Amino acid sequence: MLLTVRTAATYELEAETFMYLMVEPPLAGLTHRVRQERLLTTPTTFCELRHDRYGNPHRHLVAGQGTFSFEFTATIEVAANAAVPEEAIEHFPRNIPPEEMIYTLPSRYCQSDLLARMAQGEFGHLKPGGGRVRAIADWVRQHVQYSHGTTSTKTSAFDTATERIGVCRDFAHLVIAFCRGLDIPARYVSGYALGLEPPDFHGFVQVYLGGAWHNVDATSEAVRPALVPIAVGRDAADVAMTTLWGPNTLIEQTVQVREVPG
Amino acid sequence: MLLTVRTAATYELEAETFMYLMVEPPLAGLTHRVRQERLLTTPTTFCELRHDRYGNPHRHLVAGQGTFSFEFTATIEVAANAAVPEEAIEHFPRNIPPEEMIYTLPSRYCQSDLLARMAQGEFGHLKPGGGRVRAIADWVRQHVQYSHGTTSTKTSAFDTATERIGVCRDFAHLVIAFCRGLDIPARYVSGYALGLEPPDFHGFVQVYLGGAWHNVDATSEAVRPALVPIAVGRDAADVAMTTLWGPNTLIEQTVQVREVPG
Amino acid sequence: MLLTVRTAATYELEAETFMYLMVEPPLAGLTHRVRQERLLTTPTTFCELRHDRYGNPHRHLVAGQGTFSFEFTATIEVAANAAVPEEAIEHFPRNIPPEEMIYTLPSRYCQSDLLARMAQGEFGHLKPGGGRVRAIADWVRQHVQYSHGTTSTKTSAFDTATERIGVCRDFAHLVIAFCRGLDIPARYVSGYALGLEPPDFHGFVQVYLGGAWHNVDATSEAVRPALVPIAVGRDAADVAMTTLWGPNTLIEQTVQVREVPG
Amino acid sequence: MLLTVRTAATYELEAETFMYLMVEPPLAGLTHRVRQERLLTTPTTFCELRHDRYGNPHRHLVAGQGTFSFEFTATIEVAANAAVPEEAIEHFPRNIPPEEMIYTLPSRYCQSDLLARMAQGEFGHLKPGGGRVRAIADWVRQHVQYSHGTTSTKTSAFDTATERIGVCRDFAHLVIAFCRGLDIPARYVSGYALGLEPPDFHGFVQVYLGGAWHNVDATSEAVRPALVPIAVGRDAADVAMTTLWGPNTLIEQTVQVREVPG
Repeated sequence: MLLTVRTAATYELEAETFMYLMVEPPLAGLTHRVRQERLLTTPTTFCELRHDRYGNPHRHLVAGQGTFSFEFTATIEVAANAAVPEEAIEHFPRNIPPEEMIYTLPSRYCQSDLLARMAQGEFGHLKPGGGRVRAIADWVRQHVQYSHGTTSTKTSAFDTATERIGVCRDFAHLVIAFCRGLDIPARYVSGYALGLEPPDFHGFVQVYLGGAWHNVDATSEAVRPALVPIAVGRDAADVAMTTLWGPNTLIEQTVQVREVPG
Repeated sequence: MLLTVRTAATYELEAETFMYLMVEPPLAGLTHRVRQERLLTTPTTFCELRHDRYGNPHRHLVAGQGTFSFEFTATIEVAANAAVPEEAIEHFPRNIPPEEMIYTLPSRYCQSDLLARMAQGEFGHLKPGGGRVRAIADWVRQHVQYSHGTTSTKTSAFDTATERIGVCRDFAHLVIAFCRGLDIPARYVSGYALGLEPPDFHGFVQVYLGGAWHNVDATSEAVRPALVPIAVGRDAADVAMTTLWGPNTLIEQTVQVREVPG
Repeated sequence: MLLTVRTAATYELEAETFMYLMVEPPLAGLTHRVRQERLLTTPTTFCELRHDRYGNPHRHLVAGQGTFSFEFTATIEVAANAAVPEEAIEHFPRNIPPEEMIYTLPSRYCQSDLLARMAQGEFGHLKPGGGRVRAIADWVRQHVQYSHGTTSTKTSAFDTATERIGVCRDFAHLVIAFCRGLDIPARYVSGYALGLEPPDFHGFVQVYLGGAWHNVDATSEAVRPALVPIAVGRDAADVAMTTLWGPNTLIEQTVQVREVPG
Repeated sequence: MLLTVRTAATYELEAETFMYLMVEPPLAGLTHRVRQERLLTTPTTFCELRHDRYGNPHRHLVAGQGTFSFEFTATIEVAANAAVPEEAIEHFPRNIPPEEMIYTLPSRYCQSDLLARMAQGEFGHLKPGGGRVRAIADWVRQHVQYSHGTTSTKTSAFDTATERIGVCRDFAHLVIAFCRGLDIPARYVSGYALGLEPPDFHGFVQVYLGGAWHNVDATSEAVRPALVPIAVGRDAADVAMTTLWGPNTLIEQTVQVREVPG
């Protein structure tokens, strides 16, 4: 499948500002390949591509006082997104690569230590594997109401487990916390999704089963047709699309994802 | 049924101390009558029975520096405790006495505002009435593990909804929060229970259905044979057995409840 | 001083709805007297004045499906609001009326049990009395940023102690929690305030010192010229201006408070 | 300085158990060098040294049902621990290595997003650099009471900011959260400390100033004479000394750290 993605934003900066921009997917991943891309920014005095501890590419930028805007466009080949295979196996901790064990530990928004008993109670009796992860995603979709404007950047999986309302970010955090509560490595992914209405950045989950990472998206009963990861981390705290160190106002922001003839 | 209850405690007081003691049941209630009672305290310079805003009797005491102890014994007639009648009706808010509406509002340990959606999701489809309240108590007993030493006086219903472990106090708070989330007046009761092992004060719930308050105790599948209320309130914060204003050490405390031949 | 207050609101009701309306001040209080008042509602099938457990008057109403609106106007004599007297004494718990002790206990939004150590650390060394309560209000005003839209009905004093941003309700909850942490009875008041910009209902605090309740308002360095209480309670959970049992949409709401020639 | 460290523990395992053991310091660090070390375990069927995503060495073990014990002893050269240099500079985010930026982000126990305003309020006016970090540690030591048994593994910096009581772990989390709230990279270190009474593992902080990591320990007014890091991470969740996947009982555990003649 071939996608074009475009995201653009305009900020008003009160002073020269350093920022991180994390909107460019890795050039190639397991399920995608960037065929061409272009990042336009209004005049910047510094622009460099770097990688964080998780290996996520991100842009370091310095822009002067006044209006700053960027536009990122890319054409990306992406494999059709697939459901977690029913039969994909859960690994015993002994067989999980040590560097992925970080994704079994609690994090800012995914307090899996506090949710472990609930995860065991709701899902502990199910057969381990891909089917169990699907059951977790189904549970979250059925028990949590999707609603804009009811949660904030303070909302965590511990809240959503009881409050049962939120957006894609909250759905993802709860899936992650449940998985970790069962010792299944689970990480947060920010990315581009085909078919979101309204279009926006998307937050979803990857779980490590059968030696590979698989996409999980509890916000949709149907499998999303295409997901392109930008960055992965423990939870949303790790993968902010933009971080500006300095006072600023977001004037506008837009995201578009379209399928184009291959 | 005839019960004898006895509770005693010894404190070491660092200075003259004013205290509230809330261990004496009202002389008569809907389901009990105190036949005789005796409160012994080591020499106190002040001792007076007062009533709080909920109408709970409690003792105001002043004791000098050093060892302070009290012993309360009573013989109490009590009706056999009954399950909430299956058919007891839930009142529309319009038909709940205004002075009882306080028991539909969130409180320190029962954040029913945060639990309302979960209550609706789990119990909203059930037929209103006593059967629904029983279903709530069953749910709590089946989903929350009874365990000493895992929770503290900081633990609230919002915690227990997810952490799913605790003691009678935590069970009661969660039942209350769910009931209030459905607009059912529910209050916390501290009292004496027959058959607790080990013997201790007990915390349980009363719900207002069909124009009367009914006992609910989620810690036991079988109906407790006898429950004697000492005090009622919004949650455990309102009905502390003892409150000492001043530095002190609890040396020992004991509670006994026994059935005696009528 | 003579005030006119006017508040009005319009709702769209999806069905016949029962509601509580708590916008009418008591006819007389320590510092105010209602000279005349008028409550207009669109046709209601039921309208009755009742009192809750705290003694607050409130209106029970039933309105049919469709548009519902009310308008309350009153002319009220009110004494000039005064600062807490510097020398007003704090009572030992022994000398606090038992029915007011409820205002020393933690509540939904004022977890004074969790804030007691902070209260002791910040204010424990100060001379007890009105001056200490003023110091608490000053601390809150100086450490918490007043900002609309950053907090929600979930925000409690425990949050505000650290997050340090909020509105009048959050300021009041933090003052209350600190006072209770020092065993000073403190309650939440919803009311009308002269001079608010923009005009709105107001939430402030009353503390019990020297045998009387005194207004405390941490949102303003200057003493507010006039405050008229509508209702008091443990915290904002007890004194909602309107509670509607049924799906509805608030279309508009307005509050005006004006000084008029006496 | 030359130290001998010894730690040993005994567990009763209900079944064959896989575990992580994180008690062995890296062979060499900026301020220490392991001269000799020995890990003894009761018969294990698997024992391998691995490294996690932070580069921390840790042992993977499989032990059979029944009693399991380990004993780790080492002789370690360590530089005298030093206070954070007063003049060490804070880096602008632009000059912080991207792989260390993870230590400016909020984590499970260090919700720096929620504490940023408090950090700014308390420390924002201070001159950036080592002196400011010292002021943070001083503040924590002066405002938080050191007390065993009052906090748990659920306690986070957000709690400690208000509750103001805890142990080394809680002190460290609060220092970290404040530093991150000021964009200073700060990480949690588990390690061995000379002079702890009673002897135990220790949790402290490292901050990134002037291009290097510096130890910060808010639990002691005097600079600790020697600190040997075992593992670093975002907070205590990352550096558990032992993690056992399976039901077990800790029978005993001991830690000793002694200075020996060089």
